[in-house]
Amino acid sequence: MDDIITLDYGSGGKKTSRLIENSILPRLNNPALGELGDGAILPGAERLVFSTDSFVVSPLFFPGGDIGKLAVCGTVNDIAMCGGEPLYLSCALIMEEGLPMETLERVLDSLRDACRAAGVQVVTGDTKVVERGRGDQLYINTAGIGRLRFPGLSPKNIREGDRVLVSGSLGDHGATVMLARSGMAQGELRSDCAPLHRMAAALLERCPGVRVLRDPTRGGAATTLNEFVEGAELGIELEEAAVPVRPAVHAACELLGLDPLYCANEGKLLAVVPPEEAEAALETLHSFPEGAEAALIGTVTAKNPGRLVLRTRLGGGRVLQKLAGAQLPRIC
Amino acid sequence: MDDIITLDYGSGGKKTSRLIENSILPRLNNPALGELGDGAILPGAERLVFSTDSFVVSPLFFPGGDIGKLAVCGTVNDIAMCGGEPLYLSCALIMEEGLPMETLERVLDSLRDACRAAGVQVVTGDTKVVERGRGDQLYINTAGIGRLRFPGLSPKNIREGDRVLVSGSLGDHGATVMLARSGMAQGELRSDCAPLHRMAAALLERCPGVRVLRDPTRGGAATTLNEFVEGAELGIELEEAAVPVRPAVHAACELLGLDPLYCANEGKLLAVVPPEEAEAALETLHSFPEGAEAALIGTVTAKNPGRLVLRTRLGGGRVLQKLAGAQLPRIC
Repeated sequence: MDDIITLDYGSGGKKTSRLIENSILPRLNNPALGELGDGAILPGAERLVFSTDSFVVSPLFFPGGDIGKLAVCGTVNDIAMCGGEPLYLSCALIMEEGLPMETLERVLDSLRDACRAAGVQVVTGDTKVVERGRGDQLYINTAGIGRLRFPGLSPKNIREGDRVLVSGSLGDHGATVMLARSGMAQGELRSDCAPLHRMAAALLERCPGVRVLRDPTRGGAATTLNEFVEGAELGIELEEAAVPVRPAVHAACELLGLDPLYCANEGKLLAVVPPEEAEAALETLHSFPEGAEAALIGTVTAKNPGRLVLRTRLGGGRVLQKLAGAQLPRIC
Repeated sequence: MDDIITLDYGSGGKKTSRLIENSILPRLNNPALGELGDGAILPGAERLVFSTDSFVVSPLFFPGGDIGKLAVCGTVNDIAMCGGEPLYLSCALIMEEGLPMETLERVLDSLRDACRAAGVQVVTGDTKVVERGRGDQLYINTAGIGRLRFPGLSPKNIREGDRVLVSGSLGDHGATVMLARSGMAQGELRSDCAPLHRMAAALLERCPGVRVLRDPTRGGAATTLNEFVEGAELGIELEEAAVPVRPAVHAACELLGLDPLYCANEGKLLAVVPPEEAEAALETLHSFPEGAEAALIGTVTAKNPGRLVLRTRLGGGRVLQKLAGAQLPRIC
């Protein structure tokens, strides 16, 4: 561990994991909760899902979204990935002195629209103001409460032969925000920021064997898939040729020195499903506009326990580790 | 409305109210929720209380507490003031690059201890890192879920002749933090930061007629009491001689040009109770260490509708308005 917090600790990759494992969980862990997921399934009788995220994205507005839409979709999706139906949100604003009122109201308009689109309600909130130079215009925290509809999702359910699905192209959000920050022209790039709970619920209804769902945000798909098999007897083989990545994302990543597999997504889910449900799962995802480009991208194998291996287009195999360091700071 | 957010908008006083009324509620209001309180009583069948607060206090450590303890007590108390039994917290950290790991861990130790003391559990969380100069070491958001045990608390219940109680001396937290920030010696000053849910529950059990509870944080007791009668046919008369204020708080306030009635508290509650329950309420508060200095400080009258009037020691009357402007920025 370093002596100070560096940007790497916010990357969603290895250092974030280490911070959580070494500094946070020894103090705040909760044996009753079992494993860590995108949200908590509360141990009480209510069967509720509870999740939180702070949003510190820079810039506040980017093609396809803004911090307000992101603050709704991010928490809605975390609840959905736990098998929950998102119902209520809190919304806490940390505003920097000097924030234009018009900017704030534009963000709030977007946040309201995103709530309507997702069918969730903001029911409580907070406002704080910090001095100029102690923030960056606007940070938003949302916490969300959902009703647990599909219990039991967990990486522990994964079995040899299971298939890995992604609901669409990878890297769109991360590449868009990074390019927006660089000031370069964005062409067709757009963030994929979208609520996933309806598609997730349809998938879980039709395919009760789904092992685990996760939205690959910070750290990207490579980090999330690593988390699925971390410490397990099984590994995942990913087919490079099957992974959907838009040409514009490829181009932006080349330019910026990024890898789409490590770029954040804000409107995609990864699912591990038993082989006999793979076709039905794909069909279900395809029936939603946000899942139109869903694809089977990998298989769970006993060959590389605990590892994610990319089968390249040339037939080689490359181990993909969790994101190390801050590929993309302040991406969400 | 101004064109930009100034520090005043974070004061908890008039400008904060205006921001909420003009910019936030028109977008995010929720008719099903009824009036705004410290938290939301969820309209669904679960009878849950949901609340959130971000904590941006500066300095992070001060006599009697720190940002970690504050982040637990603040949300626990908001739930308690709604008649809820606090159960679960989320904890989201926004860390500035360069934050010493030791500082973070000290805060987390304190946060854990505060959770244990309050009997609540952190069940979900988030970590974000922002660049140097885009934060101020550490901001913490907590959201909390509680079970609604005592429904129906509301300023609308207030009747002529009701008595106003405070659970102890006023201004301790605000005066302590402001003096700590000034770098002056603090003497006996200590923040009152403490969880109030057990005392609140005992009060509500013994005195079922309690009209409303509120913890006077930002904006202080004067602002909270104003909120009780805002737009009502009734007013509140406060007896200056009855308001408990420690000599050290008086001295610090004189030095800093503050008024204890507008200083934040983090371990005090205000209650409005029917006259026939006033003695029992006082006795209940006195039976808790955190309520040892509880006092009857005012009366609800029909004389000054919508107003809070201070009866001074000299027999005069002075209207106390809601806090205007940023008396105390970043106090919680």
